[in-house]
Amino acid sequence: MSALVKPVNVSRWISGVVHSDPDLLAVEEPLEIRIGFGEKANRKQKSLSVTMRTPGHDFELAIGFLFTERIIDSYDQVESVKYCEDIGRQDEKENVVRVELNPSVVIDFKKLQRNFYTTSSCGVCGKSSLEAVDAACTHVGSDLRLTIQQIIEAPKQMKSAQAAFKHTGGLHASGLFGAKGHLQRLREDVGRHNALDKVIGGAVIENQIPLSNSFILVSGRLSFELVQKAISAGVPILLAVGAPSSLAVDLAKKFGVTLVGFLKPDKFNIYCNPERILTNS
Amino acid sequence: MSALVKPVNVSRWISGVVHSDPDLLAVEEPLEIRIGFGEKANRKQKSLSVTMRTPGHDFELAIGFLFTERIIDSYDQVESVKYCEDIGRQDEKENVVRVELNPSVVIDFKKLQRNFYTTSSCGVCGKSSLEAVDAACTHVGSDLRLTIQQIIEAPKQMKSAQAAFKHTGGLHASGLFGAKGHLQRLREDVGRHNALDKVIGGAVIENQIPLSNSFILVSGRLSFELVQKAISAGVPILLAVGAPSSLAVDLAKKFGVTLVGFLKPDKFNIYCNPERILTNS
Repeated sequence: MSALVKPVNVSRWISGVVHSDPDLLAVEEPLEIRIGFGEKANRKQKSLSVTMRTPGHDFELAIGFLFTERIIDSYDQVESVKYCEDIGRQDEKENVVRVELNPSVVIDFKKLQRNFYTTSSCGVCGKSSLEAVDAACTHVGSDLRLTIQQIIEAPKQMKSAQAAFKHTGGLHASGLFGAKGHLQRLREDVGRHNALDKVIGGAVIENQIPLSNSFILVSGRLSFELVQKAISAGVPILLAVGAPSSLAVDLAKKFGVTLVGFLKPDKFNIYCNPERILTNS
Repeated sequence: MSALVKPVNVSRWISGVVHSDPDLLAVEEPLEIRIGFGEKANRKQKSLSVTMRTPGHDFELAIGFLFTERIIDSYDQVESVKYCEDIGRQDEKENVVRVELNPSVVIDFKKLQRNFYTTSSCGVCGKSSLEAVDAACTHVGSDLRLTIQQIIEAPKQMKSAQAAFKHTGGLHASGLFGAKGHLQRLREDVGRHNALDKVIGGAVIENQIPLSNSFILVSGRLSFELVQKAISAGVPILLAVGAPSSLAVDLAKKFGVTLVGFLKPDKFNIYCNPERILTNS
């Protein structure tokens, strides 16, 4: 808990009266992800990304990032994950994670550009974005079915497990649920893509990929990027408390992911691939 | 409106009954930002960024991005902004914006890395992030004062102007307000950084920088990145409907920006530099 929140004093204006009160903020700190790669005789390193994240589960975040960006296929390709030792200040050490890759891992440096959905040859549009994912991911196949009760209960389970959000109101959450609807892993972060990378990274580390018999709930809205991450992990059902974007729905539809949005205690919307939701249950 | 939303059919589950209904989604499409630069005899071009955005006000987005990333200081350095003509498919043309810079503009290519808050020499932490902004931005000075009424009214004004959100529930908004509390410019986007870049880009194009006599309201949470953008535009007061992060508050405090969060009809929190809020008003 100590890493997720930070105490501050705020002036609260409530109906005409100002109070000075202690409060808690969601912590935001940069995390740099570095990789070591290449043959032992000619080992190289590269800084891949700096993301603003909430500290905690940093190794999961790094592994999830490498996996959803398709730099690694499995945890077998990772020799070690650790905080960087050769950083000067103590408070910086835990903001740099270094992942040593197996010498056999071949890195396509073009893939290291996060803007993977554009290529100079095909231009830039929603269609070419979908085609870029097409080249890299496979259709999500799964016989998983969820009852209405399992769907409705998921946000309640997540909320009661969201320790830091309760105090700050400032964190996104992603939850991984098993086939019977039980919350298996919850991660919180100021960045919604980080929360999802942490959940997926945990599954990569525990060799649970593809997640064909699981579903994921996110606390906010669903973007193209989040759906792309879920597809790369083979997640067949994606639930969101908020709204999906147009391209999020297009992508889910194309890859066979069931998308549910605006999930409330008494209602929700199904945007595509509805056969996995047992609406008569 | 047509570019902001897209019609779809959804299955709505409401208290045990499934309805098939038309609905509207917030549109998400990639936008590539390219620059042309250098002497006339040796003109070069570079692709700077691909961001997933909601179409509309794309030139403001491109200019706001170049300004908040400190590639340009003012609109005088821009010779033209247009959609790219040499893209093949019609539907792609409006997803690539090309900004021609004045030949006198000197570009520091190290700055073109979006992860500007890390340097190899000083490591990575919240403190070094603040120092990086320190090197590039100046303290925000302003005599602007807001009454409680002006603060409370801001979200109401923004909400009534948010045409697309009303239909989709899926868009972030940023609003620029004048010293008397009137909404001057509202922009909506699936990405909150894009909504703010559009608002600031509009101000850059109309030569209104620094925005020392204006304030900005954002519909969601406040991150380090959003506060950094506001500082670069000289905005003295930043209001948010959601929560700020720890580093957002640290940055605002350091640069003299007044930060208000959790803004509701009957209450709000002031996180730093409270002297600009007339709490006795």
